[in-house]
Amino acid sequence: MSAQSAKQTMPQNAIAVTMGEPAGIGGEVTLKAWQNRERLSSPFFLIDDPKRIERLTQNFGMSVPIKSINTPEEAFQCFSTHLPVLPINKKIDINLGKPHIAYAAAVINSIEIGVRLVTSGKASALTTNPIQKEILYQAGFEYPGHTEFLAHLASIETPPVMMLASRVLRVVPVTIHESLLSAVQSLNAADIVEKTMIANSALCRDFALAKPRLAIAGLNPHAGEGGTLGNEEIDIIAPAIKQLKVKGLDVFGPVPPDTLFSEKIRETYDAAICMYHDQALIPIKTLDFEGAVNVTCGLPFIRTSPDHGTAIDIARKGTASPESLVAALNMAAAMAANRHQQHAPHTQGQNGLVSA
Amino acid sequence: MSAQSAKQTMPQNAIAVTMGEPAGIGGEVTLKAWQNRERLSSPFFLIDDPKRIERLTQNFGMSVPIKSINTPEEAFQCFSTHLPVLPINKKIDINLGKPHIAYAAAVINSIEIGVRLVTSGKASALTTNPIQKEILYQAGFEYPGHTEFLAHLASIETPPVMMLASRVLRVVPVTIHESLLSAVQSLNAADIVEKTMIANSALCRDFALAKPRLAIAGLNPHAGEGGTLGNEEIDIIAPAIKQLKVKGLDVFGPVPPDTLFSEKIRETYDAAICMYHDQALIPIKTLDFEGAVNVTCGLPFIRTSPDHGTAIDIARKGTASPESLVAALNMAAAMAANRHQQHAPHTQGQNGLVSA
Repeated sequence: MSAQSAKQTMPQNAIAVTMGEPAGIGGEVTLKAWQNRERLSSPFFLIDDPKRIERLTQNFGMSVPIKSINTPEEAFQCFSTHLPVLPINKKIDINLGKPHIAYAAAVINSIEIGVRLVTSGKASALTTNPIQKEILYQAGFEYPGHTEFLAHLASIETPPVMMLASRVLRVVPVTIHESLLSAVQSLNAADIVEKTMIANSALCRDFALAKPRLAIAGLNPHAGEGGTLGNEEIDIIAPAIKQLKVKGLDVFGPVPPDTLFSEKIRETYDAAICMYHDQALIPIKTLDFEGAVNVTCGLPFIRTSPDHGTAIDIARKGTASPESLVAALNMAAAMAANRHQQHAPHTQGQNGLVSA
Repeated sequence: MSAQSAKQTMPQNAIAVTMGEPAGIGGEVTLKAWQNRERLSSPFFLIDDPKRIERLTQNFGMSVPIKSINTPEEAFQCFSTHLPVLPINKKIDINLGKPHIAYAAAVINSIEIGVRLVTSGKASALTTNPIQKEILYQAGFEYPGHTEFLAHLASIETPPVMMLASRVLRVVPVTIHESLLSAVQSLNAADIVEKTMIANSALCRDFALAKPRLAIAGLNPHAGEGGTLGNEEIDIIAPAIKQLKVKGLDVFGPVPPDTLFSEKIRETYDAAICMYHDQALIPIKTLDFEGAVNVTCGLPFIRTSPDHGTAIDIARKGTASPESLVAALNMAAAMAANRHQQHAPHTQGQNGLVSA
């Protein structure tokens, strides 16, 4: 896999990290990620209320010096000795474990600042801490989720595509958060083609792959066994593969899902395009539970996020692991280095094929 | 996991290995398994035509001395120096890679002899090489598959249950060889309860677990997230779990499928009961592709088989790996040792709960 092992040049700027839900574990894991800064391949700065972060360090008895910064550039200078925090427009005084609607605007403000900085090139990438959607909905938030809000801020019309990436596997689910029955019934060739192309484009630009090799999973056991165990491979998936080949992509399949993730077959592709949530998530979490990073393909900037939620239930304990955030930061740094090496402008159209 | 690590006493008798499809890789992998006999924890004998096996060794240039035996007992004496072969009732002269209806009766005869020997206690367990069902159907074979034929020979009415077992994971799919749509639509609580009980019984008797801990998977992403991503967890799986608890089983769930197979959660159960084929097969093959063994629960005797097919397409090449057969033989030996230690009679009712 290339993201972690790619020859890395230091990205120009630091990574912007959003606050996420302040009652959750976002602040805690960000502090712990800074404590692990020797394992990070790029500096980052947090977009948050510096005073709240200082209180958090006291709360958890952590010795992390905080520095309130005015510009992202300052992050580079102080990162080795201080956690740089770029202030949001509001003070946060919240009880861990108790999300409150009063801070919804601040959560959104942190994301808006992050997008502005990464879009203008002042941050190399955006790594987002998890948000608590229900609270934001109560405050009038009109987007189904984090990614849709980012797409809105970036003025993107084609929905972005979720990729989960770890050191040993990348997966892209074509259908995601719906029941398995609904996923089976809604599967169609157009979605497979669109999402595969967006993923392909991201792999070219951000993972330094000249021509990504893409394995397209079957839906049914044994990929349908010629129609005896289901017809979706014949009616939907094979036609999508044909279209993708016509467009010049290096795709193969439909591959029997149960063999697709064995070590030997993983070596033959750069990403697996999966037909439903658990077909993608089971193998990646089975192989590397904490190392899986959520990468959003199809935005004009680099965005990664840890593969966990706000973990409200353990937010007061101080036991949250920073491993997924560390992995998300290092993935973002590697992607930024790849994009920087290619001298590709940040704001160029990103959904078409990139011929690298 | 206990099967491999259990304190093993040598089982009383050798393992009976059936011929399987003679045009496939069965003979080849059996010869190679004997060559790996230092890694086997029990002797075995093959039920086949000794002359054909001798020709196979010449064909592949393997130096494996064959000994035609008259009784299973002889296998013990000669196993260190010869591959013992108990003759079937027919000579086999077949081209590798070209299954022929003329040998269907011999394939069946090998299975019948194996079942007779393991039922009477003259063999400690039955390990079956894969068969080519289409050829047997042409010859009038009336059973959907290998396992159903074994159930018929054993006079079992409740369908046996498939378990896949490796060193790090055991999985039991509740629905198996049907389309994903059909699996979702046919899922019901009665099947979950019945198959879980049969698997539980096998884990007690053959895997030396006093009270097996069973994780019951959800069907939908995040196990349905309280009904927002599907209702099967609420309507079908949770009621099945309730019934199983009433029957005294140590079960928990429904567990979100994508987290169920992470290392940390695997430590909390002895087997995962899965709702569909790939939910079970993806994690086990991802973790240990060649080490997964097919165990049939609910027969009155021990039956294992390698987790591959006849591989007709590579039968002439001599490149087939014996690893899955070696794993199947060692799994059978461990199970036989466990059953022997418990002094449980071979022919006792096996589908009810065993209180160990």
